Amino acid sequence: MSAIFETTILGSSAATPTSVRHTSAQLLKYHNLYFLIDCAEGCQMQLRRLKKPMMKIGHIFISHLHGDHYLGLPGLLFSLHLLGREQELHVYSPPGLEEIIDLQYKISGLTPSFHIRFHDLLEGETQIYEDDNLTVETIEMDHRLPTFGFLFREKPKERTIRKESLSEYRIPLTRRSGIKKGDDLITEDGTRIPNEEITSPPPPPRSYAFCSDTAYTETFIEQIRHADLLYHEATFMHNKADIARQKLHSTTIEAATLARKAGAGTLMIGHYSARYKELEDFRKEAATVFPNTILAREGETVEVRLKKQAGKPGG
Amino acid sequence: MSAIFETTILGSSAATPTSVRHTSAQLLKYHNLYFLIDCAEGCQMQLRRLKKPMMKIGHIFISHLHGDHYLGLPGLLFSLHLLGREQELHVYSPPGLEEIIDLQYKISGLTPSFHIRFHDLLEGETQIYEDDNLTVETIEMDHRLPTFGFLFREKPKERTIRKESLSEYRIPLTRRSGIKKGDDLITEDGTRIPNEEITSPPPPPRSYAFCSDTAYTETFIEQIRHADLLYHEATFMHNKADIARQKLHSTTIEAATLARKAGAGTLMIGHYSARYKELEDFRKEAATVFPNTILAREGETVEVRLKKQAGKPGG
Repeated sequence: MSAIFETTILGSSAATPTSVRHTSAQLLKYHNLYFLIDCAEGCQMQLRRLKKPMMKIGHIFISHLHGDHYLGLPGLLFSLHLLGREQELHVYSPPGLEEIIDLQYKISGLTPSFHIRFHDLLEGETQIYEDDNLTVETIEMDHRLPTFGFLFREKPKERTIRKESLSEYRIPLTRRSGIKKGDDLITEDGTRIPNEEITSPPPPPRSYAFCSDTAYTETFIEQIRHADLLYHEATFMHNKADIARQKLHSTTIEAATLARKAGAGTLMIGHYSARYKELEDFRKEAATVFPNTILAREGETVEVRLKKQAGKPGG
Repeated sequence: MSAIFETTILGSSAATPTSVRHTSAQLLKYHNLYFLIDCAEGCQMQLRRLKKPMMKIGHIFISHLHGDHYLGLPGLLFSLHLLGREQELHVYSPPGLEEIIDLQYKISGLTPSFHIRFHDLLEGETQIYEDDNLTVETIEMDHRLPTFGFLFREKPKERTIRKESLSEYRIPLTRRSGIKKGDDLITEDGTRIPNEEITSPPPPPRSYAFCSDTAYTETFIEQIRHADLLYHEATFMHNKADIARQKLHSTTIEAATLARKAGAGTLMIGHYSARYKELEDFRKEAATVFPNTILAREGETVEVRLKKQAGKPGG
């Protein structure tokens, strides 16, 4: 059974793939909407292997234009074309990607069967996407190129009118929408019934913060505070903190420190350097600072669960 | 045990990968030299999975600039950079690839650690590579874009001086090089000993012709005549000959017909449309016209064997 709000790991390797790990990509699902976060080489094969509905992806968010985060996009776009896609596709990335894709189409002599709408991500901008249930904001990373994380946040849901109140007060259909939004009920004799007496509150909104690639920084800590699921890169074990700093990446301990300070529900680490074979060491080291740490493992799906319910990590 | 002259199949799928097949790439090995033929998405992972020496690749030949033949190149180049390559790399392709790679480097803000020397392939040109043992010629395909096959041909080897002749005539070291090339021996008393009496002929040179992508054509049949191993695309089974013609691809029967007419030793077919799951049907259908047909299967290595020794297919 798939959850309402979940992310599937398609790639977890930093910089170069290994024989068993792909470079960065995740497929985020919210109800029946699919969002791709990064699209590195091999992403389309991972989608096929995991039987994910490639054609349903409506929005692709590329964190930055290092090859290990976008080189699977041309092949994916080409496959969508061959599959006969007609629906417009939105691609969000730092400036430059449209030029790269356009040049490849020009030289291949191909015109895609669908419109690709490129959105340049710029510093200072925050909300880049909104629908009835969800917003997406950029998070500014600290990396060599302009690099963005993405914060997927549920909108507050409506209150539920209690069944017994519906019959007791015979609430007319025309009033129900307002009451679900928080209006009090005025009865026929003019009495005001406070909203809280006739409705139940909605579950709190959930959020997923995707943070890759970045040096350790607390500049965005308020924006991601209390994220139910925080993905934060941990390219290196902490004994390589000097290399991490030099390359503007983070370590296990740094990712865990940020999760602790931000009051995250669950921390998922990933973007492991290709030099490491064993990943469990990453989890153990991060868990010394933030116990509720899980590993991004390819092929696994992690539900975005409410922080208070997050005693058992998802996936 | 690896052979002297062999090709390893890294990708065998046409247009789009499937969950089990990658798009076009082969690694050709001659002695200790490595040549990559096409470099589609996922090629670098296939090289890693098969434990092939990625850093030893000196020359990359790209048949044409459709995505399913070159989209793995940017990632491979980036990985070679991260591995600290210093040796110059030669990349041969129809014009346009240098512009694509340069733009990606510019936008990523990266300068590769090694020099990439791009060679534009042009119509009418034939020999594009030569070393002590091997030449590579382009073969002009019939496809939508300028598309080239590649003919790898051993140079004729030197003759071997018979052991008994070495002692009988006490052939001085200074004369041996000329005799191996075919000179007669002039003894101290002026007698001419014909070369054939003191040497054995070398084995005949072997050749591997790589032909993808192309509609059926006999325009290059003289160039590939008697190729010991002929790779020819067979994107479709023959009941889809109309689609093949429309897309400028070939069928099983067409590939086999060309192999028969060209007098090839072994035919290897590949570049299978993603619509097919079962490949054995391809081999069977081609074998009705050219019995010595084998399938390009990913991960398998096929030796380039002399035609007369080719009773049992390699691999």
